[in-house]
Amino acid sequence: MAEPEQDSVAFEDPAYRAAVVDLLGAITYGEISAFQRLTDDAKLATELPDKLALGKMAVVQFGHIEPLMERISALGADPMEAMAPFVMPFDVFHTATAPSDWLEGLIKAYVGDGLAADFYVEIASYLDGGTRQLIVDSLADAGHSEFVVDRVRRAIEADHRVAGRLALWGRRLMGEALSQAQRVAAERDSLAALLAGGVDRPGMDLAALSRMFSRLTENHAKRMAELGLAS
Amino acid sequence: MAEPEQDSVAFEDPAYRAAVVDLLGAITYGEISAFQRLTDDAKLATELPDKLALGKMAVVQFGHIEPLMERISALGADPMEAMAPFVMPFDVFHTATAPSDWLEGLIKAYVGDGLAADFYVEIASYLDGGTRQLIVDSLADAGHSEFVVDRVRRAIEADHRVAGRLALWGRRLMGEALSQAQRVAAERDSLAALLAGGVDRPGMDLAALSRMFSRLTENHAKRMAELGLAS
Repeated sequence: MAEPEQDSVAFEDPAYRAAVVDLLGAITYGEISAFQRLTDDAKLATELPDKLALGKMAVVQFGHIEPLMERISALGADPMEAMAPFVMPFDVFHTATAPSDWLEGLIKAYVGDGLAADFYVEIASYLDGGTRQLIVDSLADAGHSEFVVDRVRRAIEADHRVAGRLALWGRRLMGEALSQAQRVAAERDSLAALLAGGVDRPGMDLAALSRMFSRLTENHAKRMAELGLAS
Repeated sequence: MAEPEQDSVAFEDPAYRAAVVDLLGAITYGEISAFQRLTDDAKLATELPDKLALGKMAVVQFGHIEPLMERISALGADPMEAMAPFVMPFDVFHTATAPSDWLEGLIKAYVGDGLAADFYVEIASYLDGGTRQLIVDSLADAGHSEFVVDRVRRAIEADHRVAGRLALWGRRLMGEALSQAQRVAAERDSLAALLAGGVDRPGMDLAALSRMFSRLTENHAKRMAELGLAS
Protein backbone atom coordinates (compact mmCIF):
# COMPACT_ATOMS: atom_id res chain seq x y z
CA MET A 1 0.00 0.00 0.00
CA ALA A 2 1.33 3.46 -0.91
CA GLU A 3 2.10 5.76 1.97
CA PRO A 4 -0.89 8.10 2.22
CA GLU A 5 1.55 11.01 2.53
CA GLN A 6 2.39 10.64 -1.12
CA ASP A 7 -1.25 10.96 -2.13
CA SER A 8 -1.75 14.52 -1.12
CA VAL A 9 -0.05 17.48 0.48
CA ALA A 10 -3.18 17.68 2.63
CA PHE A 11 -1.55 15.22 5.05
CA GLU A 12 1.11 17.81 5.86
CA ASP A 13 -1.64 19.42 7.94
CA PRO A 14 -1.81 17.44 11.21
CA ALA A 15 -5.42 18.55 11.75
CA TYR A 16 -6.36 17.06 8.40
CA ARG A 17 -4.59 13.84 9.21
CA ALA A 18 -6.36 13.62 12.58
CA ALA A 19 -9.71 14.28 10.93
CA VAL A 20 -9.18 11.54 8.34
CA VAL A 21 -8.21 9.11 11.10
CA ASP A 22 -11.42 10.06 12.91
CA LEU A 23 -13.54 9.59 9.83
CA LEU A 24 -11.93 6.25 8.96
CA GLY A 25 -12.37 5.15 12.58
CA ALA A 26 -16.08 5.94 12.37
CA ILE A 27 -16.49 4.11 9.06
CA THR A 28 -14.55 1.09 10.29
CA TYR A 29 -16.59 0.71 13.46
CA GLY A 30 -19.70 1.27 11.34
CA GLU A 31 -18.69 -1.72 9.22
CA ILE A 32 -18.15 -3.85 12.32
CA SER A 33 -21.60 -2.80 13.55
CA ALA A 34 -23.12 -3.59 10.18
CA PHE A 35 -21.50 -7.01 10.21
CA GLN A 36 -23.00 -7.79 13.59
CA ARG A 37 -26.41 -6.45 12.65
CA LEU A 38 -26.54 -8.49 9.44
CA THR A 39 -25.65 -11.66 11.30
CA ASP A 40 -28.41 -10.87 13.81
CA ASP A 41 -30.85 -10.42 10.93
CA ALA A 42 -29.68 -13.74 9.50
CA LYS A 43 -30.86 -15.35 12.72
CA LEU A 44 -34.33 -13.81 12.34
CA ALA A 45 -34.63 -15.32 8.84
CA THR A 46 -36.89 -18.37 8.86
CA GLU A 47 -35.84 -19.56 5.39
CA LEU A 48 -32.39 -21.08 5.01
CA PRO A 49 -31.66 -19.34 1.64
CA ASP A 50 -32.46 -15.95 3.27
CA LYS A 51 -30.16 -16.83 6.14
CA LEU A 52 -27.36 -17.60 3.71
CA ALA A 53 -27.99 -14.47 1.63
CA LEU A 54 -27.66 -12.28 4.73
CA GLY A 55 -24.64 -14.23 5.91
CA LYS A 56 -22.96 -13.52 2.60
CA MET A 57 -23.66 -9.80 2.85
CA ALA A 58 -22.21 -9.80 6.37
CA VAL A 59 -19.05 -11.47 5.09
CA VAL A 60 -18.70 -8.85 2.33
CA GLN A 61 -19.01 -6.07 4.94
CA PHE A 62 -16.39 -7.74 7.08
CA GLY A 63 -13.99 -7.75 4.14
CA HIS A 64 -13.99 -3.93 4.14
CA ILE A 65 -12.66 -3.73 7.68
CA GLU A 66 -9.05 -4.77 7.11
CA PRO A 67 -8.19 -2.24 4.35
CA LEU A 68 -9.66 0.55 6.48
CA MET A 69 -7.64 -0.52 9.50
CA GLU A 70 -4.48 -0.75 7.40
CA ARG A 71 -5.01 2.80 6.17
CA ILE A 72 -5.45 4.08 9.72
CA SER A 73 -2.20 2.34 10.68
CA ALA A 74 -0.45 3.81 7.63
CA LEU A 75 -1.52 7.24 8.87
CA GLY A 76 0.38 6.51 12.07
CA ALA A 77 -2.65 5.93 14.28
CA ASP A 78 -3.87 2.89 16.19
CA PRO A 79 -7.05 1.50 14.56
CA MET A 80 -8.59 0.45 17.87
CA GLU A 81 -8.04 3.91 19.34
CA ALA A 82 -9.39 5.51 16.18
CA MET A 83 -12.60 3.51 16.47
CA ALA A 84 -13.04 4.02 20.22
CA PRO A 85 -14.92 7.38 20.12
CA PHE A 86 -17.53 5.89 17.78
CA VAL A 87 -18.30 2.66 19.61
CA MET A 88 -20.84 4.31 21.92
CA PRO A 89 -22.80 6.32 19.30
CA PHE A 90 -23.13 3.29 17.00
CA ASP A 91 -24.06 0.98 19.86
CA VAL A 92 -26.62 3.48 21.17
CA PHE A 93 -28.10 3.77 17.69
CA HIS A 94 -28.35 0.00 17.32
CA THR A 95 -29.86 -0.48 20.76
CA ALA A 96 -32.40 2.31 20.17
CA THR A 97 -33.37 0.74 16.85
CA ALA A 98 -33.33 -2.98 17.62
CA PRO A 99 -35.66 -4.49 15.00
CA SER A 100 -38.62 -6.40 16.42
CA ASP A 101 -38.87 -8.66 13.39
CA TRP A 102 -37.25 -9.78 10.16
CA LEU A 103 -38.76 -7.01 7.99
CA GLU A 104 -37.70 -4.25 10.37
CA GLY A 105 -34.20 -5.73 10.32
CA LEU A 106 -34.08 -5.74 6.53
CA ILE A 107 -35.29 -2.15 6.30
CA LYS A 108 -32.80 -1.05 8.88
CA ALA A 109 -29.98 -2.63 6.87
CA TYR A 110 -31.12 -1.00 3.65
CA VAL A 111 -32.07 2.44 4.95
CA GLY A 112 -29.29 2.67 7.53
CA ASP A 113 -26.46 1.55 5.26
CA GLY A 114 -27.78 3.72 2.45
CA LEU A 115 -27.86 6.79 4.64
CA ALA A 116 -24.41 6.13 6.06
CA ALA A 117 -22.97 5.50 2.60
CA ASP A 118 -24.48 8.73 1.23
CA PHE A 119 -23.09 10.69 4.14
CA TYR A 120 -19.57 9.28 3.88
CA VAL A 121 -19.48 9.83 0.12
CA GLU A 122 -20.52 13.47 0.64
CA ILE A 123 -17.71 13.94 3.13
CA ALA A 124 -15.28 12.02 0.92
CA SER A 125 -15.66 14.57 -1.85
CA TYR A 126 -13.81 17.03 0.43
CA LEU A 127 -10.88 14.64 0.93
CA ASP A 128 -7.70 13.72 -0.93
CA GLY A 129 -8.09 11.23 -3.79
CA GLY A 130 -6.56 8.20 -2.04
CA THR A 131 -8.80 8.48 1.02
CA ARG A 132 -11.82 9.17 -1.16
CA GLN A 133 -11.28 6.01 -3.22
CA LEU A 134 -10.79 3.87 -0.12
CA ILE A 135 -14.06 5.15 1.34
CA VAL A 136 -16.01 4.63 -1.88
CA ASP A 137 -14.66 1.06 -2.17
CA SER A 138 -15.62 0.31 1.43
CA LEU A 139 -19.19 1.37 0.79
CA ALA A 140 -19.77 -0.82 -2.26
CA ASP A 141 -23.26 -2.27 -1.93
CA ALA A 142 -22.92 -5.83 -0.71
CA GLY A 143 -25.84 -6.71 -2.98
CA HIS A 144 -28.46 -6.35 -0.31
CA SER A 145 -30.46 -3.54 -1.92
CA GLU A 146 -32.06 -5.84 -4.48
CA PHE A 147 -32.65 -8.57 -1.93
CA VAL A 148 -34.26 -6.26 0.64
CA VAL A 149 -36.46 -4.49 -1.91
CA ASP A 150 -37.74 -7.84 -3.15
CA ARG A 151 -38.51 -9.21 0.33
CA VAL A 152 -40.18 -6.03 1.63
CA ARG A 153 -42.31 -5.59 -1.50
CA ARG A 154 -43.43 -9.20 -1.31
CA ALA A 155 -44.42 -8.76 2.35
CA ILE A 156 -46.47 -5.65 1.53
CA GLU A 157 -48.18 -7.47 -1.33
CA ALA A 158 -49.08 -10.29 1.02
CA ASP A 159 -50.47 -7.93 3.67
CA HIS A 160 -50.93 -4.23 2.88
CA ARG A 161 -51.27 -3.30 6.55
CA VAL A 162 -47.55 -3.81 7.21
CA ALA A 163 -46.74 -0.79 4.99
CA GLY A 164 -47.95 1.73 7.60
CA ARG A 165 -45.96 0.23 10.44
CA LEU A 166 -42.83 -0.07 8.29
CA ALA A 167 -43.11 3.53 7.06
CA LEU A 168 -43.12 4.71 10.69
CA TRP A 169 -40.13 2.47 11.32
CA GLY A 170 -38.23 4.12 8.45
CA ARG A 171 -38.92 7.57 9.88
CA ARG A 172 -37.73 6.48 13.30
CA LEU A 173 -34.49 5.12 11.83
CA MET A 174 -33.81 8.42 10.09
CA GLY A 175 -34.48 10.37 13.29
CA GLU A 176 -32.22 8.21 15.44
CA ALA A 177 -29.44 8.27 12.84
CA LEU A 178 -29.51 12.06 12.63
CA SER A 179 -29.53 12.44 16.38
CA GLN A 180 -26.46 10.22 16.78
CA ALA A 181 -24.69 11.93 13.87
CA GLN A 182 -25.31 15.32 15.46
CA ARG A 183 -23.94 14.09 18.77
CA VAL A 184 -20.77 12.84 17.07
CA ALA A 185 -20.35 16.07 15.09
CA ALA A 186 -20.75 18.15 18.25
CA GLU A 187 -18.22 16.10 20.20
CA ARG A 188 -15.57 15.68 17.50
CA ASP A 189 -14.16 19.00 16.38
CA SER A 190 -12.14 17.24 13.71
CA LEU A 191 -15.13 16.74 11.43
CA ALA A 192 -16.05 20.41 11.56
CA ALA A 193 -12.42 21.32 10.81
CA LEU A 194 -12.43 18.89 7.91
CA LEU A 195 -15.48 20.50 6.35
CA ALA A 196 -13.95 23.95 6.74
CA GLY A 197 -11.36 23.06 4.07
CA GLY A 198 -7.56 23.30 3.96
CA VAL A 199 -4.40 23.72 1.91
CA ASP A 200 -5.46 21.97 -1.28
CA ARG A 201 -9.07 21.23 -0.44
CA PRO A 202 -12.12 23.45 -0.83
CA GLY A 203 -14.28 23.88 2.29
CA MET A 204 -18.00 23.55 2.80
CA ASP A 205 -19.99 26.64 3.73
CA LEU A 206 -23.36 26.72 5.47
CA ALA A 207 -25.26 26.75 2.16
CA ALA A 208 -23.31 23.69 0.98
CA LEU A 209 -24.01 21.95 4.29
CA SER A 210 -27.70 22.65 3.91
CA ARG A 211 -27.67 21.33 0.34
CA MET A 212 -25.95 18.20 1.58
CA PHE A 213 -28.71 17.57 4.12
CA SER A 214 -31.32 18.07 1.40
CA ARG A 215 -29.61 15.45 -0.75
CA LEU A 216 -29.42 13.00 2.16
CA THR A 217 -33.12 13.46 2.87
CA GLU A 218 -34.07 13.09 -0.79
CA ASN A 219 -32.08 9.91 -1.17
CA HIS A 220 -33.70 8.53 1.97
CA ALA A 221 -37.14 9.26 0.51
CA LYS A 222 -36.12 7.55 -2.74
CA ARG A 223 -35.05 4.45 -0.89
CA MET A 224 -38.29 4.32 1.08
CA ALA A 225 -40.25 4.70 -2.17
CA GLU A 226 -38.23 1.89 -3.71
CA LEU A 227 -39.42 -0.31 -0.85
CA GLY A 228 -42.99 0.81 -1.50
CA LEU A 229 -43.10 2.88 1.68
CA ALA A 230 -43.99 6.50 2.45
CA SER A 231 -41.21 8.54 4.02
CA MET B 1 -15.39 -28.95 -10.28
CA ALA B 2 -14.97 -32.58 -11.33
CA GLU B 3 -18.14 -34.67 -11.36
CA PRO B 4 -18.05 -36.65 -8.12
CA GLU B 5 -19.04 -39.76 -10.13
CA GLN B 6 -15.56 -39.85 -11.61
CA ASP B 7 -13.96 -39.98 -8.21
CA SER B 8 -15.20 -43.35 -7.17
CA VAL B 9 -17.34 -46.27 -8.24
CA ALA B 10 -18.93 -45.96 -4.80
CA PHE B 11 -21.36 -43.41 -6.25
CA GLU B 12 -22.86 -46.14 -8.43
CA ASP B 13 -24.56 -47.27 -5.24
CA PRO B 14 -27.58 -44.94 -4.70
CA ALA B 15 -27.56 -45.64 -0.96
CA TYR B 16 -23.95 -44.43 -0.76
CA ARG B 17 -24.79 -41.32 -2.73
CA ALA B 18 -27.76 -40.60 -0.44
CA ALA B 19 -25.61 -41.12 2.63
CA VAL B 20 -22.92 -38.74 1.38
CA VAL B 21 -25.58 -36.11 0.63
CA ASP B 22 -26.88 -36.57 4.18
CA LEU B 23 -23.44 -36.24 5.70
CA LEU B 24 -22.57 -33.16 3.62
CA GLY B 25 -25.95 -31.65 4.53
CA ALA B 26 -25.16 -32.13 8.22
CA ILE B 27 -21.68 -30.65 7.89
CA THR B 28 -22.96 -27.67 5.86
CA TYR B 29 -25.67 -26.78 8.34
CA GLY B 30 -23.11 -27.29 11.09
CA GLU B 31 -20.93 -24.63 9.43
CA ILE B 32 -23.89 -22.24 9.19
CA SER B 33 -24.59 -22.84 12.88
CA ALA B 34 -20.94 -22.29 13.74
CA PHE B 35 -20.94 -19.02 11.79
CA GLN B 36 -23.93 -17.77 13.74
CA ARG B 37 -22.53 -18.89 17.07
CA LEU B 38 -19.17 -17.21 16.45
CA THR B 39 -20.89 -13.95 15.54
CA ASP B 40 -22.92 -14.22 18.75
CA ASP B 41 -19.71 -14.76 20.70
CA ALA B 42 -18.23 -11.73 18.97
CA LYS B 43 -21.03 -9.68 20.51
CA LEU B 44 -20.16 -10.93 23.99
CA ALA B 45 -16.55 -9.78 23.54
CA THR B 46 -15.89 -6.59 25.42
CA GLU B 47 -12.58 -5.88 23.70
CA LEU B 48 -12.66 -4.71 20.09
CA PRO B 49 -9.66 -6.85 19.00
CA ASP B 50 -11.41 -9.96 20.41
CA LYS B 51 -14.57 -9.00 18.55
CA LEU B 52 -12.59 -8.75 15.32
CA ALA B 53 -10.73 -12.01 15.93
CA LEU B 54 -14.02 -13.86 16.36
CA GLY B 55 -15.55 -12.09 13.37
CA LYS B 56 -12.65 -13.28 11.25
CA MET B 57 -13.10 -16.88 12.39
CA ALA B 58 -16.81 -16.63 11.55
CA VAL B 59 -15.96 -15.39 8.06
CA VAL B 60 -13.55 -18.31 7.53
CA GLN B 61 -16.30 -20.76 8.56
CA PHE B 62 -18.71 -19.10 6.18
CA GLY B 63 -16.25 -19.63 3.33
CA HIS B 64 -16.59 -23.42 3.73
CA ILE B 65 -20.32 -23.36 3.04
CA GLU B 66 -20.30 -22.72 -0.70
CA PRO B 67 -17.98 -25.60 -1.75
CA LEU B 68 -20.04 -28.00 0.37
CA MET B 69 -23.28 -26.81 -1.22
CA GLU B 70 -21.75 -27.08 -4.70
CA ARG B 71 -20.76 -30.66 -4.00
CA ILE B 72 -24.29 -31.53 -2.84
CA SER B 73 -25.66 -30.01 -6.06
CA ALA B 74 -23.10 -31.93 -8.14
CA LEU B 75 -24.43 -35.09 -6.50
CA GLY B 76 -27.84 -34.20 -7.91
CA ALA B 77 -29.41 -33.13 -4.61
CA ASP B 78 -30.79 -29.81 -3.41
CA PRO B 79 -28.50 -28.33 -0.73
CA MET B 80 -31.40 -26.79 1.23
CA GLU B 81 -33.24 -30.12 1.31
CA ALA B 82 -30.04 -31.90 2.26
CA MET B 83 -29.59 -29.60 5.25
CA ALA B 84 -33.22 -29.68 6.37
CA PRO B 85 -33.09 -32.82 8.55
CA PHE B 86 -30.20 -31.36 10.56
CA VAL B 87 -31.57 -27.91 11.28
CA MET B 88 -33.54 -29.06 14.32
CA PRO B 89 -30.80 -31.17 16.01
CA PHE B 90 -28.22 -28.38 15.63
CA ASP B 91 -30.65 -25.70 16.77
CA VAL B 92 -31.71 -27.81 19.77
CA PHE B 93 -28.05 -28.32 20.67
CA HIS B 94 -27.31 -24.61 20.45
CA THR B 95 -30.39 -23.64 22.47
CA ALA B 96 -29.58 -26.23 25.15
CA THR B 97 -26.01 -24.95 25.39
CA ALA B 98 -26.46 -21.18 25.06
CA PRO B 99 -23.34 -19.76 26.74
CA SER B 100 -24.04 -17.46 29.64
CA ASP B 101 -20.82 -15.51 29.16
CA TRP B 102 -17.85 -14.90 26.91
CA LEU B 103 -15.71 -17.72 28.33
CA GLU B 104 -18.47 -20.30 28.00
CA GLY B 105 -18.92 -19.18 24.38
CA LEU B 106 -15.21 -19.57 23.65
CA ILE B 107 -15.08 -23.04 25.19
CA LYS B 108 -18.17 -24.08 23.28
CA ALA B 109 -16.55 -22.99 20.00
CA TYR B 110 -13.33 -24.83 20.79
CA VAL B 111 -14.74 -28.02 22.29
CA GLY B 112 -17.79 -28.23 20.02
CA ASP B 113 -15.97 -27.62 16.75
CA GLY B 114 -13.16 -29.93 17.82
CA LEU B 115 -15.56 -32.74 18.60
CA ALA B 116 -17.53 -32.24 15.37
CA ALA B 117 -14.33 -32.13 13.31
CA ASP B 118 -13.00 -35.32 14.92
CA PHE B 119 -16.28 -37.08 14.25
CA TYR B 120 -16.51 -36.02 10.59
CA VAL B 121 -12.90 -36.96 9.93
CA GLU B 122 -13.54 -40.41 11.43
CA ILE B 123 -16.54 -40.88 9.12
CA ALA B 124 -14.63 -39.43 6.17
CA SER B 125 -12.06 -42.21 6.35
CA TYR B 126 -14.83 -44.57 5.17
CA LEU B 127 -15.64 -42.41 2.14
CA ASP B 128 -14.30 -41.98 -1.40
CA GLY B 129 -11.20 -39.80 -1.76
CA GLY B 130 -12.94 -36.74 -3.26
CA THR B 131 -15.55 -36.49 -0.53
CA ARG B 132 -12.94 -37.14 2.13
CA GLN B 133 -10.73 -34.30 0.91
CA LEU B 134 -13.67 -31.88 0.73
CA ILE B 135 -14.63 -32.69 4.32
CA VAL B 136 -11.09 -32.35 5.63
CA ASP B 137 -10.72 -28.97 3.88
CA SER B 138 -14.02 -27.76 5.36
CA LEU B 139 -12.85 -28.54 8.84
CA ALA B 140 -9.56 -26.66 8.68
CA ASP B 141 -9.13 -24.89 12.00
CA ALA B 142 -10.08 -21.25 11.47
CA GLY B 143 -7.29 -20.36 13.87
CA HIS B 144 -9.44 -20.20 16.94
CA SER B 145 -7.77 -22.95 18.91
CA GLU B 146 -4.79 -20.82 19.81
CA PHE B 147 -6.95 -17.79 20.52
CA VAL B 148 -9.37 -19.66 22.78
CA VAL B 149 -6.63 -21.49 24.70
CA ASP B 150 -4.90 -18.17 25.38
CA ARG B 151 -8.04 -16.38 26.59
CA VAL B 152 -9.30 -19.24 28.78
CA ARG B 153 -5.89 -19.81 30.38
CA ARG B 154 -5.57 -16.11 31.12
CA ALA B 155 -9.02 -16.08 32.74
CA ILE B 156 -8.13 -19.06 34.96
CA GLU B 157 -4.85 -17.40 35.95
CA ALA B 158 -6.76 -14.26 36.93
CA ASP B 159 -9.32 -16.21 38.98
CA HIS B 160 -8.77 -19.90 39.72
CA ARG B 161 -12.38 -20.41 40.77
CA VAL B 162 -13.67 -20.19 37.19
CA ALA B 163 -11.91 -23.48 36.35
CA GLY B 164 -14.47 -25.60 38.24
CA ARG B 165 -17.47 -23.99 36.59
CA LEU B 166 -15.88 -24.21 33.13
CA ALA B 167 -14.94 -27.87 33.59
CA LEU B 168 -18.60 -28.65 34.33
CA TRP B 169 -19.57 -26.65 31.26
CA GLY B 170 -17.22 -28.74 29.10
CA ARG B 171 -18.80 -31.95 30.39
CA ARG B 172 -22.27 -30.63 29.68
CA LEU B 173 -21.29 -29.72 26.10
CA MET B 174 -19.99 -33.24 25.51
CA GLY B 175 -23.19 -34.77 26.92
CA GLU B 176 -25.51 -32.59 24.82
CA ALA B 177 -23.46 -33.18 21.66
CA LEU B 178 -23.56 -36.96 22.12
CA SER B 179 -27.28 -36.91 22.80
CA GLN B 180 -28.01 -34.96 19.59
CA ALA B 181 -25.62 -37.12 17.57
CA GLN B 182 -27.39 -40.26 18.81
CA ARG B 183 -30.75 -38.80 17.87
CA VAL B 184 -29.55 -38.03 14.35
CA ALA B 185 -27.97 -41.48 13.95
CA ALA B 186 -31.19 -43.17 15.10
CA GLU B 187 -33.36 -41.14 12.70
CA ARG B 188 -31.14 -41.27 9.62
CA ASP B 189 -30.56 -44.82 8.43
CA SER B 190 -28.14 -43.55 5.81
CA LEU B 191 -25.34 -43.01 8.30
CA ALA B 192 -25.66 -46.54 9.66
CA ALA B 193 -25.63 -47.86 6.07
CA LEU B 194 -22.56 -45.76 5.32
CA LEU B 195 -20.64 -47.23 8.23
CA ALA B 196 -21.61 -50.77 7.17
CA GLY B 197 -19.39 -50.37 4.08
CA GLY B 198 -19.99 -51.01 0.37
CA VAL B 199 -18.57 -51.93 -3.04
CA ASP B 200 -15.11 -50.41 -2.72
CA ARG B 201 -15.22 -49.27 0.88
CA PRO B 202 -14.48 -51.22 4.02
CA GLY B 203 -17.16 -51.17 6.71
CA MET B 204 -16.98 -50.42 10.42
CA ASP B 205 -17.78 -53.21 12.85
CA LEU B 206 -18.88 -52.79 16.45
CA ALA B 207 -15.33 -53.02 17.74
CA ALA B 208 -14.24 -50.27 15.32
CA LEU B 209 -17.21 -48.14 16.39
CA SER B 210 -16.25 -48.54 20.02
CA ARG B 211 -12.63 -47.61 19.25
CA MET B 212 -13.90 -44.52 17.42
CA PHE B 213 -15.83 -43.38 20.49
CA SER B 214 -12.75 -43.94 22.64
CA ARG B 215 -10.71 -41.73 20.32
CA LEU B 216 -13.39 -39.01 20.37
CA THR B 217 -13.48 -39.05 24.17
CA GLU B 218 -9.70 -39.01 24.44
CA ASN B 219 -9.40 -36.05 22.08
CA HIS B 220 -12.07 -34.20 24.05
CA ALA B 221 -10.09 -34.79 27.26
CA LYS B 222 -6.93 -33.51 25.53
CA ARG B 223 -8.69 -30.33 24.45
CA MET B 224 -10.01 -29.72 27.95
CA ALA B 225 -6.51 -30.28 29.37
CA GLU B 226 -5.11 -27.83 26.82
CA LEU B 227 -7.51 -25.24 28.24
CA GLY B 228 -6.33 -26.06 31.76
CA LEU B 229 -9.60 -27.80 32.62
CA ALA B 230 -10.52 -31.23 34.01
CA SER B 231 -12.73 -33.34 31.74
